[in-house]
Amino acid sequence: MGRWQPRARERLESAALELFLEQGFAETTVPQITARAGLTTRTFFRHFADKREVLFAGEEDVPALVTRLLAEAPATLSPLAVIDWGFQPFAAATFEGRFEELRMRRRIIQADAGLRERELQKRATLAEAVRQGFLLRGTDELTALLAAEIAVTVFSVSLTRWLDQDAGDKLAGIIVHTLQVLRGVAAETLVPAQ
Amino acid sequence: MGRWQPRARERLESAALELFLEQGFAETTVPQITARAGLTTRTFFRHFADKREVLFAGEEDVPALVTRLLAEAPATLSPLAVIDWGFQPFAAATFEGRFEELRMRRRIIQADAGLRERELQKRATLAEAVRQGFLLRGTDELTALLAAEIAVTVFSVSLTRWLDQDAGDKLAGIIVHTLQVLRGVAAETLVPAQ
Repeated sequence: MGRWQPRARERLESAALELFLEQGFAETTVPQITARAGLTTRTFFRHFADKREVLFAGEEDVPALVTRLLAEAPATLSPLAVIDWGFQPFAAATFEGRFEELRMRRRIIQADAGLRERELQKRATLAEAVRQGFLLRGTDELTALLAAEIAVTVFSVSLTRWLDQDAGDKLAGIIVHTLQVLRGVAAETLVPAQ
Repeated sequence: MGRWQPRARERLESAALELFLEQGFAETTVPQITARAGLTTRTFFRHFADKREVLFAGEEDVPALVTRLLAEAPATLSPLAVIDWGFQPFAAATFEGRFEELRMRRRIIQADAGLRERELQKRATLAEAVRQGFLLRGTDELTALLAAEIAVTVFSVSLTRWLDQDAGDKLAGIIVHTLQVLRGVAAETLVPAQ
């Protein structure tokens, strides 16, 4: 074991995000990150498998957590109410307070095609986790699938809206508003094709 | 120009789909495809840039077509009605009658990680095209974004349901039903978090 480094992981994360933003994700190397952080590459690889993991670490457990959260929501809640019920505390615990970091992270991902693909993959994995959660509640297959897609849409649209504003609005409030607008879109009367 | 080959493109497509299914997409080479089709590799490359294009050819024009179609829908239609109005003829023209081919195609894509990623990318591109169509109608940004995600969800879920059944149901009818279930999900009353 190496010498203990105070806040090594946080320092590596900050240095990596700075460099990804300054010069691009593809152009940044692990030695550059450790030089900026004043740490060794050996320390880096004790915390992260590679530079991409700096952006996605800690997300492996999210799908199983989401499935369990939804499965355990009160049985009386409708699918949309489950989404509302589950996302408020999840959003508060996972995102509120990390505004600047998440905004930097999103700019880095938007600028790199490979990272954008990884985000799409993450979205699909999250939708599948939500679907499994609904199935465990006894929701029928089609409703579970559509509710999962709606949930992931509301979630990702709300996150984007939150990170795009500078007014200091809370993510929780933006989720509520996005859900309201979505309900308005879906409630409109279908006009038959001519 | 080479000798005219009757139905060369169709024969190459059939041979490629057969081989992708039999031995996997990654394991199949262009010479194997042309041997199966009884044609030369030179003929293959007159029709396709590479083997992947056999699965995705002709899709480059779809986003612009979708944007224009939605922008030109009657101004009085609500967002969901626009989706219904646009998808019925689009689905009939593009998919009905290609059931077996599309089913094979989907099995091939599901079996290969790179092709699944390509499909996710396609979905994101389609959602962006639908969003642009709504913006051209004067729909506000948030509604356009949510309506686009709903449209792509209804479309891809309907396509999957259609290809998963053997009862001979029409895609158009499945789209109508999927839209109905989605409206049911989204119309349910929100119960406030406890």
